[in-house]
Amino acid sequence: MPHKLLLNCDLGEGYGSWTMGRDEALMPWLDQASIACGFHASDPDTMARTIALAKRHQVTIGAHPGYHDKEGFGRRSIPHSPAGITHLVLYQAGALTALAELPALDYVKPHGALYNDMMRDEAIFRAVLEALVRLPGHPRLMLLATPNHSHYTRLAQQVGVDLLREAFADRAYLDDGGLVPWQLPGAVLDDVEQIRERVRHLRDTGEILSVTGKVLKLAPDTLCVHSDHAQAVAIARAAREALSA
Amino acid sequence: MPHKLLLNCDLGEGYGSWTMGRDEALMPWLDQASIACGFHASDPDTMARTIALAKRHQVTIGAHPGYHDKEGFGRRSIPHSPAGITHLVLYQAGALTALAELPALDYVKPHGALYNDMMRDEAIFRAVLEALVRLPGHPRLMLLATPNHSHYTRLAQQVGVDLLREAFADRAYLDDGGLVPWQLPGAVLDDVEQIRERVRHLRDTGEILSVTGKVLKLAPDTLCVHSDHAQAVAIARAAREALSA
Amino acid sequence: MPHKLLLNCDLGEGYGSWTMGRDEALMPWLDQASIACGFHASDPDTMARTIALAKRHQVTIGAHPGYHDKEGFGRRSIPHSPAGITHLVLYQAGALTALAELPALDYVKPHGALYNDMMRDEAIFRAVLEALVRLPGHPRLMLLATPNHSHYTRLAQQVGVDLLREAFADRAYLDDGGLVPWQLPGAVLDDVEQIRERVRHLRDTGEILSVTGKVLKLAPDTLCVHSDHAQAVAIARAAREALSA
Amino acid sequence: MPHKLLLNCDLGEGYGSWTMGRDEALMPWLDQASIACGFHASDPDTMARTIALAKRHQVTIGAHPGYHDKEGFGRRSIPHSPAGITHLVLYQAGALTALAELPALDYVKPHGALYNDMMRDEAIFRAVLEALVRLPGHPRLMLLATPNHSHYTRLAQQVGVDLLREAFADRAYLDDGGLVPWQLPGAVLDDVEQIRERVRHLRDTGEILSVTGKVLKLAPDTLCVHSDHAQAVAIARAAREALSA
Repeated sequence: MPHKLLLNCDLGEGYGSWTMGRDEALMPWLDQASIACGFHASDPDTMARTIALAKRHQVTIGAHPGYHDKEGFGRRSIPHSPAGITHLVLYQAGALTALAELPALDYVKPHGALYNDMMRDEAIFRAVLEALVRLPGHPRLMLLATPNHSHYTRLAQQVGVDLLREAFADRAYLDDGGLVPWQLPGAVLDDVEQIRERVRHLRDTGEILSVTGKVLKLAPDTLCVHSDHAQAVAIARAAREALSA
Repeated sequence: MPHKLLLNCDLGEGYGSWTMGRDEALMPWLDQASIACGFHASDPDTMARTIALAKRHQVTIGAHPGYHDKEGFGRRSIPHSPAGITHLVLYQAGALTALAELPALDYVKPHGALYNDMMRDEAIFRAVLEALVRLPGHPRLMLLATPNHSHYTRLAQQVGVDLLREAFADRAYLDDGGLVPWQLPGAVLDDVEQIRERVRHLRDTGEILSVTGKVLKLAPDTLCVHSDHAQAVAIARAAREALSA
Repeated sequence: MPHKLLLNCDLGEGYGSWTMGRDEALMPWLDQASIACGFHASDPDTMARTIALAKRHQVTIGAHPGYHDKEGFGRRSIPHSPAGITHLVLYQAGALTALAELPALDYVKPHGALYNDMMRDEAIFRAVLEALVRLPGHPRLMLLATPNHSHYTRLAQQVGVDLLREAFADRAYLDDGGLVPWQLPGAVLDDVEQIRERVRHLRDTGEILSVTGKVLKLAPDTLCVHSDHAQAVAIARAAREALSA
Repeated sequence: MPHKLLLNCDLGEGYGSWTMGRDEALMPWLDQASIACGFHASDPDTMARTIALAKRHQVTIGAHPGYHDKEGFGRRSIPHSPAGITHLVLYQAGALTALAELPALDYVKPHGALYNDMMRDEAIFRAVLEALVRLPGHPRLMLLATPNHSHYTRLAQQVGVDLLREAFADRAYLDDGGLVPWQLPGAVLDDVEQIRERVRHLRDTGEILSVTGKVLKLAPDTLCVHSDHAQAVAIARAAREALSA
């Protein structure tokens, strides 16, 4: 049976008068919107607007908390104590929950450097889980799908948090299942037809090919498209078509 | 029957390495802690610490949202649309709710310029009420007790929000029931015995005397002491003793 | 003899990963670049990049300081003491001077709400002048050219600051010489040929027509085009051509 | 001949309504004030007040730039490109220069994590030097005096920047000349008489003893006392007396 895959995107990443990404054009193609919460991007008005847009399209709302660093757009690792990580996730997720008038969030997906730090540092991973356990309804944690996932699964099960394994439709993969750093040439895929084919293969097999052609067994639950990609809307549409076919 | 009066204080108004007020020494004397939410003061760690302190002393937790203006400590009016006011209250109250791991907040007390703006501008007052209606459990609104309160009562009843009328133990009053602006001489009372007597009278009669000796029928539900007053702890203790006598 | 007119634009108004305006395409057409200084927009890296771009095109650099309010993009009036205004202008102008490695700035043009507040509040206008007097080389002040300019001229002369009177190529004018508020229909002109004609007339006569057809004797020294206008590059080019013809 | 030693302190580290350190009581004892520049602490008004205080006491003004991180008080390393470091130092130093109405600053002393990062990372050290070279008058760089200083001296000489070697009167030293991390017990010295003796010895010999009793040949040019030390004023006074004796 083919693997059931959802489509997610990070949205609401403008700030005041500054915009980022084509949220209005992307939302119709998505299942899940990871909404920025005012620390690496966004503000209460932008959040409210993005929530309304997601609701209009019946897209599931998740929190997309990041480090408190608008200047670096949450892409710089900022040292925190584990408790500090728990508090910053709680703060941002709580703010979004209230603005969305939801009893509970479906999921939380950390942003940028916090996402990367959580994947490589067990103390940070545990601190994020701790926030989820304290939130109403125990939202799920969206994280990078990796070939060997048992480490994360075990830690999450210990505290009773469910995981949403995420793969990237528009990014090249290393042999170890990591993403090619986005500054490198070829890190971001541009060819919409190639991406469509990649998504189709992932849907049918749960597999993706690394840059050297190695088969990566990722078995993701959800597929991320980037809102700030020049071809974002075309990619989202192609991915949606490939998933629905 | 004497009027039942609670004691409240604005707390958690430090920021990062900066402290403000003697929260640890004040908390034992209070019924209600209005906790800053990261916009005019505080940050997730400071909020978590203040919440833990309130819980340890079984003090009721309320949100103390302000304008997003740390440089001005929330004391400067910053123009917002009504929707913008609703969003900033929702954001901050939601963040506190999550950090406090509460199903709902007991009350919300706007801070500084937002508090003053709400009292004088009906559109802002309605926008704050709108936020409360959208929050889980419909928290009460703490506002200034004024001699003629029907205007606020009517607006709040229309949307089903309960009010907590607040008087100030350590501030001088004008004849119209407003506070003497804190920059003016005599605006802040320093004499602990005078304050104790004032609280006793307020408890017994619901009345306070203005600077010219006019009787103000305030009938407050709660009494505020200021955490940054040089005599804050002595005042809180005297007010508690007067209320409990 | 026709009035000699320069062309200016507010630039460098991105922030971190957020962009605003088409700085690269606009710079070649300009005489003066008013560069945001990190309070309402920009950051040290964005400022350095904008300075380098201006130098490459031999465009005169001016400071474009605003209120410290990125969320509101400097468009909200934030109460300051006069000394506070002086300090915030000095701070931002000094930062730009150092990044530009200039002995002195040619001019300062306040941004948004600070610009408007300076035009309508003499205390703020004096406070801005006070900053200019304290800066090395006494930069000139760029301000709105109004039909009756003697008030501003007198205050500036008292402290020895020169003025640069600015008109707007792409904005409609009220009969009193003020701009039609930008939220109103017709406030922003879109027709490039109409703007070209307007600039030509202004160059030849120093006059501009209000929305009701009243002749406004503005006699500006410089003409502003907006970097965030959808037609910004076409307008800058048309204005440059009209001025050079 | 005894080594001529100056006394410096980091000042102006309040922010808006928050205060830190006893600037007024400390300033009379100092030769050099390293003034925070609005990124890790301070704001234009606080800077202006601190500058005025330094001028009143004829204390030399230096810039004390830090990472843009008020929440972490500049004590967290935040990744920057070398150019980003240069720009943030230029920005802050320029702002202070303008507020101080000085043709040039005497020196720059990076703050907190930026100070530590500069000492351990040559790219960051060079980036700081690059800022100094671009500033008017080529301010000197204040840095940690270490037993083997040739590395820093060589890099600074290459670009023509003079160094001010700094030792700490109230901090314990490791055997390698580094400071005992301030979180550890014994890291901060409290005994005023011990500090007085330490300063006297340093003045006479240029030497300080590590926690294990090892002689560290630091030969500092200036001695730092901390403004946020509980005994700050007594320490500053004792150090001044020891240096002047």
